[in-house]
Amino acid sequence: MAALPKHILNGYRVLDMTHVLAGPTATRLMVEMGAEVIKVEFPPLGDVSRALPGHRNGRSAYFTQQNRGKYSICLNAKAEEGKAILRELIAQSDVFIENFAPGVIGRLGFGWEQVQAINPNIVMCSISALGQEGELSALPGFDYIAQAYSGIMGMIGEPGGPPSFPMAGMGDVMTGVHAAAAIGFALLHRERGGAGTFLDISLLDAYTHCHELNVQIYSMTNGETMPTRSGHHHFAVCPLGLFKGKEDWICIIALQPQWPAVCRAIGRPDLVEDPRYDTNEKRCAAAQDVIDIIQAWLDGQPSDQAILDALQRERVPCAPVLTIEQLANHPHMRGRGTIRTVSDPKLGEVLMPGMPLRFKGFPHNPPLDAAALGEHNAKVLTEILGYDDARVAALGEAGVLFANPET
Amino acid sequence: MAALPKHILNGYRVLDMTHVLAGPTATRLMVEMGAEVIKVEFPPLGDVSRALPGHRNGRSAYFTQQNRGKYSICLNAKAEEGKAILRELIAQSDVFIENFAPGVIGRLGFGWEQVQAINPNIVMCSISALGQEGELSALPGFDYIAQAYSGIMGMIGEPGGPPSFPMAGMGDVMTGVHAAAAIGFALLHRERGGAGTFLDISLLDAYTHCHELNVQIYSMTNGETMPTRSGHHHFAVCPLGLFKGKEDWICIIALQPQWPAVCRAIGRPDLVEDPRYDTNEKRCAAAQDVIDIIQAWLDGQPSDQAILDALQRERVPCAPVLTIEQLANHPHMRGRGTIRTVSDPKLGEVLMPGMPLRFKGFPHNPPLDAAALGEHNAKVLTEILGYDDARVAALGEAGVLFANPET
Repeated sequence: MAALPKHILNGYRVLDMTHVLAGPTATRLMVEMGAEVIKVEFPPLGDVSRALPGHRNGRSAYFTQQNRGKYSICLNAKAEEGKAILRELIAQSDVFIENFAPGVIGRLGFGWEQVQAINPNIVMCSISALGQEGELSALPGFDYIAQAYSGIMGMIGEPGGPPSFPMAGMGDVMTGVHAAAAIGFALLHRERGGAGTFLDISLLDAYTHCHELNVQIYSMTNGETMPTRSGHHHFAVCPLGLFKGKEDWICIIALQPQWPAVCRAIGRPDLVEDPRYDTNEKRCAAAQDVIDIIQAWLDGQPSDQAILDALQRERVPCAPVLTIEQLANHPHMRGRGTIRTVSDPKLGEVLMPGMPLRFKGFPHNPPLDAAALGEHNAKVLTEILGYDDARVAALGEAGVLFANPET
Repeated sequence: MAALPKHILNGYRVLDMTHVLAGPTATRLMVEMGAEVIKVEFPPLGDVSRALPGHRNGRSAYFTQQNRGKYSICLNAKAEEGKAILRELIAQSDVFIENFAPGVIGRLGFGWEQVQAINPNIVMCSISALGQEGELSALPGFDYIAQAYSGIMGMIGEPGGPPSFPMAGMGDVMTGVHAAAAIGFALLHRERGGAGTFLDISLLDAYTHCHELNVQIYSMTNGETMPTRSGHHHFAVCPLGLFKGKEDWICIIALQPQWPAVCRAIGRPDLVEDPRYDTNEKRCAAAQDVIDIIQAWLDGQPSDQAILDALQRERVPCAPVLTIEQLANHPHMRGRGTIRTVSDPKLGEVLMPGMPLRFKGFPHNPPLDAAALGEHNAKVLTEILGYDDARVAALGEAGVLFANPET
């Protein structure tokens, strides 16, 4: 296991009872900033993401992406000795984070009141799909469930057809970032003399947070404007959408200041002052005409690169819609570390998204290894809790501790 | 102007030279946590989001949603007296945040080296679409440009058709949360005796961060698996998708543990052990059959509510795809404050998304007013910088300061 990076969170200990994605995202950010993260898993399989693809030498790349650098302890949290270990760890941690369904952690004996009684200075963060309380909180929660309830899913897809949804765990990841932010601010409060606190972070809130316009425009117009999905062209800005290039789709955006640049780029300077198209409102009203004019120009170009070059020469905001392969191999992404190569003892070298928080003067993308299930049982119990080897061995024999080095 | 809430960030001052969405999102979160945010705008119009819909009594609801509680000063940053004011404010601030195109802030005289020379303890955060450096950094940047480059846009939409994109500023909002998180951790470092630092936060990194699976699965399979958009049914989990209810679309999700529950809910307990469908792999291979079986059941139900009730009785993860109107008026959202009513002196009462970070024991959704352009010129210059009234008046007459109370 690589040493923790020398970074902002050195000296903080995070007790991590999260699984799969939103919670592990929050603690992944923290471990990359130097926190000691103790991931608690349960026998026999541990975090279910250990079963998610792809695997090599028993190790899941999915799990690895989210959990490098974290210690793994695996224990039976329903056994009294398991609960005792958790109580001792809570007493010695700065942060406690979990993302079970609401109510589960309390029934395990580790709800906020119980945790606060053990350690009033701890920051506890519970992550859920739909919130800790309220009529929807009891529903089984996954990313897309919250996306559907948040109104975001309904805002994606072609009008008249079914909604589409992103093939990426955007809500989970985003919620993990919300959680990390809240934890950081709560630690800041503590560092300035405050006590611990409890954070209730949900995918529902994180997704709904993304409506910069939709809710208020509905409200401001008393429902006269009903924002709705509009496919691959924006309903309120024109041109803003996807055009068919010679090889792939190309995103072109022009707010009012860019409209003359679009006209010049497509060889139609005559349109700059054309009274049919000189405001965004008029262009939206004649959207199909505007789209057709621009598309006709694209159709006459020899290549996507020629299209992008012509637009960029005039400073028209535009971009190719990259595939995953193009993203993964793009020199800008590789150079910046937006895509990084992770070297894992079992997986070998694998491309993964980079650390999105960049601090000048601190290490970025430090090497970190993922842990096998229960790999750090002995380390955590002896070094942090002061158990002796015999006691650790006895807990293993009693089935309170569990490990599987083949993960 | 309402007083700042008594909250975690009391005593911190944020100098905010951001506009529109990603930057203002970060400082909105901070002002709701009690920071003093001084928003710097430029004559004659200020933040361009003041022109974004909808308006009432000269005030933009778009602007209001992102900027409540912030002081507004409006100055000419190209005039030497304007630069002097900014230098004095930098010297007295804890955080400096900007989201101009890369390079602009340096040409104004406020790049990191310059800022650090004025105040080595300040945390400076620059937000951009594609990063501060590298071949793509110079391109004009908008949310969807970064979404296209990140590979996220290509992962949304029906297969074979054009990509779709969310009609919501997800990348900007999400990036603002990344920025707030990084600022919080950088302040924590400072609070523990560290110096200031510079943060380079980009939409590209934040969007790419969301690929929990796509990049590594492409990499692990050496390109044999090419993740791609798959419309309204997931390509790798079945059933996971949208089904046509009697009134609207319904999201239904079953990982392996939920498959028997789906079979029971749709009155097909015989399918639980059916060897054609008993693993996710088999169900994905026969996805259209599985989808047709479930859809046939939905078609026979009397209402969406009956569908949801039957599924929820068996604890099948499911959700209605809410419209914005349904979201805005849902009792759970209203009760939780996921949707809140903002009361603005000019706008009146408007529904907006709530504060997604929830701290137990601290005020949530405190009342805050948006500022007219330059409303706090005198307050900021006299109370913080110690200018006298005559000097402020002279700066106004010289055109260095500007205000428009009709905003």
